[in-house]
Amino acid sequence: MVSTLVNMRRMKLIAQIEECCTSVLDAPLSESDAETLASMLRVLADPARLRLVSIIAAQPDGEACVCNLTAPLGLSQPTISHHLKKLCDAGILEREQRGRWVFYALKEGTLDTVAAIFAPA
Amino acid sequence: MVSTLVNMRRMKLIAQIEECCTSVLDAPLSESDAETLASMLRVLADPARLRLVSIIAAQPDGEACVCNLTAPLGLSQPTISHHLKKLCDAGILEREQRGRWVFYALKEGTLDTVAAIFAPA
Repeated sequence: MVSTLVNMRRMKLIAQIEECCTSVLDAPLSESDAETLASMLRVLADPARLRLVSIIAAQPDGEACVCNLTAPLGLSQPTISHHLKKLCDAGILEREQRGRWVFYALKEGTLDTVAAIFAPA
Repeated sequence: MVSTLVNMRRMKLIAQIEECCTSVLDAPLSESDAETLASMLRVLADPARLRLVSIIAAQPDGEACVCNLTAPLGLSQPTISHHLKKLCDAGILEREQRGRWVFYALKEGTLDTVAAIFAPA
C-alpha cells in the first residue's frame, strides 16, 4: 500500500515535471515532492545500479538480459536481479519477457526528467 | 583520509564531465566513477536537502542564512546546519561568513553537472 502510494506520487511528480519542466531551482519544493524526488534519487544513488543503467544504455540495441550483466559487474545473478527490480519499480528501466529471457531497456523519458530537475531554471 | 580521497575523486569526476559532457548514457561507467557519482547522489537523495537547495535557489539574492531556513523546513538549527554541511562538503553549496552570519548559495556548475550526467547522450 505504501509502495503504491509512493509510485503514484512519483508518477505524479514525473508528469508534473514533464508538463512544465519544473526544476528544483525554479521554486521551493513542497514536502511531498521533495520526498518523491528523494526516493527516486535513492534508487539511483548506488554504484551497481548506475553501472547497470550505463551498461544497458551502451548496448547496440539499448537492451540487455541478466546474463549479459553479471560478468561486467562481477555480481551474482540474484544481486543483479534485485537491482534491476528496483530500477524497474522506479520507472528507470522497463522489462520485456521474450521466451525464457527477460530483456531490460531504459524507460524513455525518466532520466531526461531527472536531468530536467537539476537543470538551470 | 577516506573523505579526502572521495573528495578528490568527485572533483576529478566533475572536471571530467565538465570537460567532455560525459553522460551515464554515453558509455559504461567505470567502478570508481560509479562510486563517486553514487556518493554525490546520496547527498542529494534526502528530502530536507532537496528543499534546502530549492529554497536557497529561490531567494531573491540566491543566498540564505540558517536563520532563514529553520522556519520553512520546520527543523532545528543544528539539523539544518548538519544538512548544509553535507551539501557544502559535496560541492553543491558554498558558504560565506559575514560578521556573525554565514550565508549559503548554490555553487555554480555542480547541479548543471548532475543534470548533464543524466541528459541524453
